[in-house]
Amino acid sequence: MKTMEDMFHALLQDVYFAEQQLGKVLPQMAQQAEDPELKKALTDHGKETQRHVERLEKAFDMIGKTPRAKTCDGILGIIAEGKETMKESQDQPVLDAGLIASSQAAEHYEIARYGTLCAWAKLLGKPQIGHLLHQTLEEEKKEDALLTRIAERSVNAHAMSA
Amino acid sequence: MKTMEDMFHALLQDVYFAEQQLGKVLPQMAQQAEDPELKKALTDHGKETQRHVERLEKAFDMIGKTPRAKTCDGILGIIAEGKETMKESQDQPVLDAGLIASSQAAEHYEIARYGTLCAWAKLLGKPQIGHLLHQTLEEEKKEDALLTRIAERSVNAHAMSA
Repeated sequence: MKTMEDMFHALLQDVYFAEQQLGKVLPQMAQQAEDPELKKALTDHGKETQRHVERLEKAFDMIGKTPRAKTCDGILGIIAEGKETMKESQDQPVLDAGLIASSQAAEHYEIARYGTLCAWAKLLGKPQIGHLLHQTLEEEKKEDALLTRIAERSVNAHAMSA
Repeated sequence: MKTMEDMFHALLQDVYFAEQQLGKVLPQMAQQAEDPELKKALTDHGKETQRHVERLEKAFDMIGKTPRAKTCDGILGIIAEGKETMKESQDQPVLDAGLIASSQAAEHYEIARYGTLCAWAKLLGKPQIGHLLHQTLEEEKKEDALLTRIAERSVNAHAMSA
């Protein structure tokens, strides 16, 4: 990687991989969730992930590249931890709290990465790509805030009375 | 893991591992950085990490447990990606931009995890632990914001002229 263009392209491939993985795992997490609001939030975000994948494909197109995923160890590690939580939690309300924690770790990974992609797109004189990916960044932040609200509203109290 | 106490303890072990790993890798990143402000930020944060480790040890003590680290796949993945960037970047100013991106991914992992720990500590009726770890949470957020400022002030422009 010699230039910022190379590094931007590499990060796009990394995040493309991450979104594809999350698109697979979010429905599994939704299935495991008991709290109806949490189940809905994870299901909806799983569908939203498809739009995020499409935006990334558009971004690849805008830099004249074919969309290609590159193994992203960060998200794989976060997902592995989430799966461990799912396996180890023996109590449903406690599992719900764990599902929120795991998905917030994934959201924050994406918030960091989209933040960087938006900054680099602007730097590279590609404001349209910046604008496109900024929509995803805002959606990730909203999801993170929604998960906090669900935890505070219902899940945490249930987990404590378990 | 049956209770929120169990899950809190497990997450404390996860973050304890993460901080120890970052304590090793941040000085390596600082050494690779060229931009003096970035070098200083990474060096200072490496030292700050030691305080974060000590706060976690205090938190273990406050729940009557011996501090023990548990492999945290999330941070290992993020660090592996950071090392790949260090290895692949052939141009110094571009490498500096990559170092910022990598450390912001690590900061966001920690922001997510400390956010959860603070919420759970409060829930478990341990406000002192919440207060203690909230200080670390604020320091991680500050580091993230500082890295953004360094990128905008100098590193990104240098990387573009590379």
